[in-house]
Amino acid sequence: MWIAELSRRTDVPVPTIKYYLREGLLAPGESVGATRARYGEEHIRRLRLIRALVEAGGLSLARVRGVLAAVDEEERELHEVLGAAHAALLPEHLVAEDTTLDRVDRLIKDRGWHVDTGSPDRVLLAGALDALERVGYHLDDALLDVYATAADEVGTADVAHLPSGEDRPRTVESTVIVTALGAPVLLALRRLAQQNASAERFGHRH
Amino acid sequence: MWIAELSRRTDVPVPTIKYYLREGLLAPGESVGATRARYGEEHIRRLRLIRALVEAGGLSLARVRGVLAAVDEEERELHEVLGAAHAALLPEHLVAEDTTLDRVDRLIKDRGWHVDTGSPDRVLLAGALDALERVGYHLDDALLDVYATAADEVGTADVAHLPSGEDRPRTVESTVIVTALGAPVLLALRRLAQQNASAERFGHRH
Repeated sequence: MWIAELSRRTDVPVPTIKYYLREGLLAPGESVGATRARYGEEHIRRLRLIRALVEAGGLSLARVRGVLAAVDEEERELHEVLGAAHAALLPEHLVAEDTTLDRVDRLIKDRGWHVDTGSPDRVLLAGALDALERVGYHLDDALLDVYATAADEVGTADVAHLPSGEDRPRTVESTVIVTALGAPVLLALRRLAQQNASAERFGHRH
Repeated sequence: MWIAELSRRTDVPVPTIKYYLREGLLAPGESVGATRARYGEEHIRRLRLIRALVEAGGLSLARVRGVLAAVDEEERELHEVLGAAHAALLPEHLVAEDTTLDRVDRLIKDRGWHVDTGSPDRVLLAGALDALERVGYHLDDALLDVYATAADEVGTADVAHLPSGEDRPRTVESTVIVTALGAPVLLALRRLAQQNASAERFGHRH
């Protein structure tokens, strides 16, 4: 298809597509003459993924580039790609207190989770706990345990629902989509559940 | 204390504090003469809350203002404040497909959750599911059910851990903190759990 049809089918304006092509986020089409190129279904999928990460995932183009690089790395083991995609989805400056990192490592060990000790998600978690401490809210072990159990149920189901590793590009793409776009689903459900629990604890019965 | 000490104790620069005062995010101190004012512990708490929402929660100052307005509304029922704080924490333009909203309403009904039918969190959830559909990922009922159960466990524990409604400002503030800053904790744990599940499903045993 020509670029006009690619634009129509993905709802992405032609100038934006050209920008993604120049920036290398989208692979070039098949050249037909000096100024025209044909595009295929893989361009549609890639464009939809970029738009989803930008619009629904709220990622900057720089972050999107990192995620796509992880998706496109064919030499890596599949389970390592998840780590690379996670790392690309992360904020750039992660810091955490050493004592909180120790707490996170204990939790990982107690749960028997297989997690790379260099995983930035460790620091992400410790930093999130530090942010709560700084405003005087200590997320105690009992509550953290509820969070970890719930997260384990969701994370395990996420991975179980991924397509088999045989269609590798699709598995990797699904991994990124589920991590980035599944998060707002979980958070919205948590808000609804909080509202329900709050109505039950603090609400007046009518 | 004077503004210099307030700055030192909260790590917020004096010009930033003055900016928050001008913008009405922070209540004025007690005037001492024409150009000086004294500040109290409540200013420290409020400043820490603002910084946490901006830095760890990633909220714009306009969004912070909305959240603080919800926190400060003394006339509302406590369980309604949670809804108002949630609404203030949300993106501005929420849209979702009608069929997805119907799906969300069925889920809320099936779970017996008490949720205001006007709650923007309904639209937030439906929009998050739509974003997944747009990239060709259907989050099926089985997986959605795992998410909802996990979210219910976390949301219920969140509310159970709030201080009693008697110290109202503290309860409201804790609600906002837990909603905004508990989210990254849950998401980081989910990433770690995904890594573990991915290593178990796709990893080679060494």
